Amino acid sequence: MSIKLADYLFTRLRQLGIRSIFGVPGDYNLHLLDFVQPSGLSWVGTCNELNAAYAADGYARINGISALITTFGVGELSALNGIAGAFAEKAPIIHIVGTPARTTQDSRALVHHTLADGEFRRFADMASHVTVAQVDLKDPRLVPDQIDRALREAMIHSRPVYLEVPDDMVDVHVDASNLTSMICTPSAPVTAHEPVVLDRILQRIYAAKQPLILADGESRCMGILDEIDRLIKTTGWPTWTTIFGKSLVNEQLANVYGIYAGSIGDSQWKEYFDSADLIINMGPHYSDTNSQNFTTIPNPTVTITLSNTYVQIDGDIYRDMHPGNILAQILQTLDTSRTPRVTGPAKSAKEADQLSSSDLINQKDFYRIVNSLIREGDIVLTETGTAAHGGRNLILPQNTRLLGPATWLSIGYMLPATLGAALAQRERTKNPESRAVLFIGDGSLQMTVQEISTIIRENLNVIIIVINNDGYTIERAIHGRKQSYNDIASWRHAQALGFFGADDTNPMQRYFPARTWGELDAVLRDKSIQDGTGVRMVEVFMGREDVQGALLRLMEKQIAYE
Amino acid sequence: MSIKLADYLFTRLRQLGIRSIFGVPGDYNLHLLDFVQPSGLSWVGTCNELNAAYAADGYARINGISALITTFGVGELSALNGIAGAFAEKAPIIHIVGTPARTTQDSRALVHHTLADGEFRRFADMASHVTVAQVDLKDPRLVPDQIDRALREAMIHSRPVYLEVPDDMVDVHVDASNLTSMICTPSAPVTAHEPVVLDRILQRIYAAKQPLILADGESRCMGILDEIDRLIKTTGWPTWTTIFGKSLVNEQLANVYGIYAGSIGDSQWKEYFDSADLIINMGPHYSDTNSQNFTTIPNPTVTITLSNTYVQIDGDIYRDMHPGNILAQILQTLDTSRTPRVTGPAKSAKEADQLSSSDLINQKDFYRIVNSLIREGDIVLTETGTAAHGGRNLILPQNTRLLGPATWLSIGYMLPATLGAALAQRERTKNPESRAVLFIGDGSLQMTVQEISTIIRENLNVIIIVINNDGYTIERAIHGRKQSYNDIASWRHAQALGFFGADDTNPMQRYFPARTWGELDAVLRDKSIQDGTGVRMVEVFMGREDVQGALLRLMEKQIAYE
Repeated sequence: MSIKLADYLFTRLRQLGIRSIFGVPGDYNLHLLDFVQPSGLSWVGTCNELNAAYAADGYARINGISALITTFGVGELSALNGIAGAFAEKAPIIHIVGTPARTTQDSRALVHHTLADGEFRRFADMASHVTVAQVDLKDPRLVPDQIDRALREAMIHSRPVYLEVPDDMVDVHVDASNLTSMICTPSAPVTAHEPVVLDRILQRIYAAKQPLILADGESRCMGILDEIDRLIKTTGWPTWTTIFGKSLVNEQLANVYGIYAGSIGDSQWKEYFDSADLIINMGPHYSDTNSQNFTTIPNPTVTITLSNTYVQIDGDIYRDMHPGNILAQILQTLDTSRTPRVTGPAKSAKEADQLSSSDLINQKDFYRIVNSLIREGDIVLTETGTAAHGGRNLILPQNTRLLGPATWLSIGYMLPATLGAALAQRERTKNPESRAVLFIGDGSLQMTVQEISTIIRENLNVIIIVINNDGYTIERAIHGRKQSYNDIASWRHAQALGFFGADDTNPMQRYFPARTWGELDAVLRDKSIQDGTGVRMVEVFMGREDVQGALLRLMEKQIAYE
Repeated sequence: MSIKLADYLFTRLRQLGIRSIFGVPGDYNLHLLDFVQPSGLSWVGTCNELNAAYAADGYARINGISALITTFGVGELSALNGIAGAFAEKAPIIHIVGTPARTTQDSRALVHHTLADGEFRRFADMASHVTVAQVDLKDPRLVPDQIDRALREAMIHSRPVYLEVPDDMVDVHVDASNLTSMICTPSAPVTAHEPVVLDRILQRIYAAKQPLILADGESRCMGILDEIDRLIKTTGWPTWTTIFGKSLVNEQLANVYGIYAGSIGDSQWKEYFDSADLIINMGPHYSDTNSQNFTTIPNPTVTITLSNTYVQIDGDIYRDMHPGNILAQILQTLDTSRTPRVTGPAKSAKEADQLSSSDLINQKDFYRIVNSLIREGDIVLTETGTAAHGGRNLILPQNTRLLGPATWLSIGYMLPATLGAALAQRERTKNPESRAVLFIGDGSLQMTVQEISTIIRENLNVIIIVINNDGYTIERAIHGRKQSYNDIASWRHAQALGFFGADDTNPMQRYFPARTWGELDAVLRDKSIQDGTGVRMVEVFMGREDVQGALLRLMEKQIAYE
């Protein structure tokens, strides 16, 4: 039996649980787009391709995998920064590029969307740096296996792949027989050393005096979140996450502490960490920004690390085992009577400042106050900048996911990612009331602001909290506190939703400014914020140089230097 | 004598006539940005990096050369599509990337804005596809010559170059002695065959019975516009341009016809072209979109072609001569008494339809009507889509430049390019009243709309004419006439200028809608449009499937196919 290439591809995407595809139409992908909706997928056209890539990234982090369609050259290059971010932080995006017909490419014709030099491989070459597989679907005999291989690589590595579909290949027939079996992540055969590894881990667990669990961000794409949850509940051991790992464990559990921040965090937590004799470390991701400048990476001599590709026990590395299997077997074999019960350090309970309702809102207290807004099932997104730093202080209800920046830190990412994540959540939960809350600075907002209109068009429930501090405050903290290059143009945020087409007789009912704690309190109690639907915007004004936590130290260092 | 690296670099940029730099601050370029304003350059921060690259491209096309500063990874990749466009259509952008300090790179540290794999060369590798020189300024002994070489390559090829400045190199001292001599485009030594070439060209000119001049788009970056103007005036020969060449010659001259469009254009023009025995063809650029799908490329057996790298006479190619020198020598030696006087075909003078003031505005007549708006000295920009097709029908006053798409055709380009071009024009002419008029479709506008705020902030005089035809009409003409993927979200354009911060007690006085010819007429006569300053927006409503010219043929073909 045969099937058209486009139908084969879109059937595969549906089988993987993709329900919507993001992208922008262009000359070389229009024929391909004809097949999207008939295949049962939704087409979500965004305002530009970078935003589409960001949206696909957000969708992948909630749904597990996502798809993006762009056009050759102009479209795919616009998306490239978004693909790079998905590579760095492990979101599997199936990036499909509509390319010129094979005859055009073979004849090296100087067509538009090229550099007019007859060379058609440049963009694929660029993409190879930020994708784990690249396939050019130009021979129908190879197509089914090429597609399957690329999708499998995306799943195994949890990273983007790159598929070229020449315009004349879209409706070429290919063999359909692969479709009867689903694509899955193949397991490696059980290795000879697997029993040794299991035994070593169990012995270390039974012998531990001061153990802890550390959940890092790559746990998400390793498919081990359920196992981690069971491990935390079974052992009752003190549990921390990294910045990237936030929200991957249930923060409402008594033994879950929050983000471990080393010397800039709670000193008792650091003391416990430093003298721990066993750290079970899962999904490691060791960038400077995810490890407080490399200071919170656990000491390997006391650590069992489960990554996607290896298990490390006290410095010895074992490969070719599935971390999920290892964890599952440990949970199954674990003799809970031999598992030590330990008492962790005190939970941080800083004395909260008394706030006067007429006082101006500040960074230090804002996230504690706004925490009441977050409900179980929400997706919370905190954009690079002060919002990401502040969002680390939120204490999340269970089943609440937070997307924050870990390593790529491309400002502008989080608003389109909100589109993707909120859409994935609505599809996944089938709950039309599912909701996302975005915290974003005024500078970041300017990067990708137009995607508000797509969020509106898709009828998603999103509360956008704009931190208006008059420019790139995080950069002011790093360098150039008073420099004009950290200024931005001044916008009237009150008019944003109206401009972008919010369907409301009075769009102003959807916009709420807040300068003082009293105003913020009123906004947070407002019926539209509490129970409303669609997009709402809260503009919170804060000082240009108001920062907290690690950023405050940077700012102080700069002032001292001046 | 020594000088800090940043001062050396910015001194060189100023020497080349660059007055403003576009870009976005980021962690790895902040120290570098400290040196921009003290060097006498203006910093123009844009909302995102793609927009900055587009703006730099527009600036380069008016100013001759431009500069862009981004940050490592996230920033430069966002700009990449803009750099590729500048490569394809020959706009020399000096792309300066602030990169991590040398120690960080040498130690392969897993810092943010990387893929967390210790590899720092990926982005430079990508850039190498779309830049003519790449230099990594990491050794002070090499820096001055590296910078000079890169700038010279940008000038010679009229294409982007890529400079990396590690964060710790910014204030390292380098030798300053190069600075006493200016960077210029070196001429190749006179070749032995140059006299032969000159003689062959002159003999062909004297012998011609039906000659014509064809000015193509790369004439701009070959620096031969003055010579072309003199050739047109001296010979009086019928002159056409290509799409890319539009506005590079004075359209008010009696012997200048407009864009040669082959079989889809005036049949008498085609007849003259087809039977011409001499075509002097300058600045060739042979993409499908610039040559009516390769049909207007002149017959080489009757053609003298002057490109940036070769002279071709009736099929014979000669290299290593400066085309400007060749043209100058021809003009100097030309015996005008022996230069044939010829009469070209009739100028197109189609019977204009009578328009009723209550009729809805259509594509066919719109550009003829709006032509009255354009004044000498304006810069006119026509975005990819129906605007670009329509803009070809404008008859421009002298000294009026039009920027339209030629080959790269990345929608979204033209609005930020307007920022760059208008700024360059104001700096170049020192005329605070200099003006730009942008024609842009509603779909393209959504791509990069936020740059309106930068145009406002820079106090530029820009009239933005938004063609609102409810989606990607040019794509509807190509394929998917009724498909929803060619729809876009609906915006309230009336609120754009207010949202983006237009400094006006009543921003609505700057927005003008027009649905009928009568309404358009009133808008075009309005004082704010005629004599106003700052940004104004005219929203012109046209039919979803209303197209003209070549696009009409495509649309009709599709309807027939359905």
